[in-house]
Amino acid sequence: MQKQAVFSDEYFMKQALIQAQIAFEKGEVPVGAVVVCNNQIISKAHNQTETLNDATAHAEMLAITAASDFLGAKYLKECTLYVTVEPCAMCAGASYWAQIGKIVYGTADDKRGYSVFNKQILHPKAKITAGVSEHECKALITNFFYKIRIKE
Amino acid sequence: MQKQAVFSDEYFMKQALIQAQIAFEKGEVPVGAVVVCNNQIISKAHNQTETLNDATAHAEMLAITAASDFLGAKYLKECTLYVTVEPCAMCAGASYWAQIGKIVYGTADDKRGYSVFNKQILHPKAKITAGVSEHECKALITNFFYKIRIKE
Repeated sequence: MQKQAVFSDEYFMKQALIQAQIAFEKGEVPVGAVVVCNNQIISKAHNQTETLNDATAHAEMLAITAASDFLGAKYLKECTLYVTVEPCAMCAGASYWAQIGKIVYGTADDKRGYSVFNKQILHPKAKITAGVSEHECKALITNFFYKIRIKE
Repeated sequence: MQKQAVFSDEYFMKQALIQAQIAFEKGEVPVGAVVVCNNQIISKAHNQTETLNDATAHAEMLAITAASDFLGAKYLKECTLYVTVEPCAMCAGASYWAQIGKIVYGTADDKRGYSVFNKQILHPKAKITAGVSEHECKALITNFFYKIRIKE
């Protein structure tokens, strides 16, 4: 495998997917995120709203806070956030305040994704790439809610 | 003083203003918040983005997380969030996920307040009261940015 291929969007999204899988196995809505700086993963997190009893504990929020802690800086201009599902308004708002340089997400969220409300929630300089490993990211969410429905 | 007057919106906003004043004195953007449940303050917080090196550490986020921790519940349907400044998209999004029943804020934020982007970021059942102790809430913010400007 060439070095270039290792540091692709698909490679880092795979790491976010591993986080989402951890969430799935814990009964959490399966969303995972990693923050990358200079091709290095500086934080990784999965949704923990149930585990932490905290509705704000989305994967992106935890990953942003951990990345800032790692760097000792509240701005993440040189960083890329990889997340399996389109960020909601809360997480997109957090990315604005942290001035995250780039956001790569897997599958859209047609109900609570930030783009449903207003794309300007994001920082004006943020670059967006959507649809990376979309099928796998979406399948995890679909399977999760399917399992919940058949239990009810 | 009558009991009713003690548990007024102005009373709880005063507590949020005390938090904002603490932020001001630490050199943080002076925003304060308290979460109230059955007329009892269950959490209070001030903006700590500088102190914690975390762009997500807005007063509302910290107050919501602390309130959920206190109650051992991620939903805050019976709670009211008092905050000195209109919540941004991030904090309004957090209030959606926590299903906060009521939000009372002091002064509007014409640049990054949630209503600039889309009022539906809030939970559909959330009640909103704006303009409580507006003058004091606004004065604190205005003074803060005035001090920064004259330093530059």
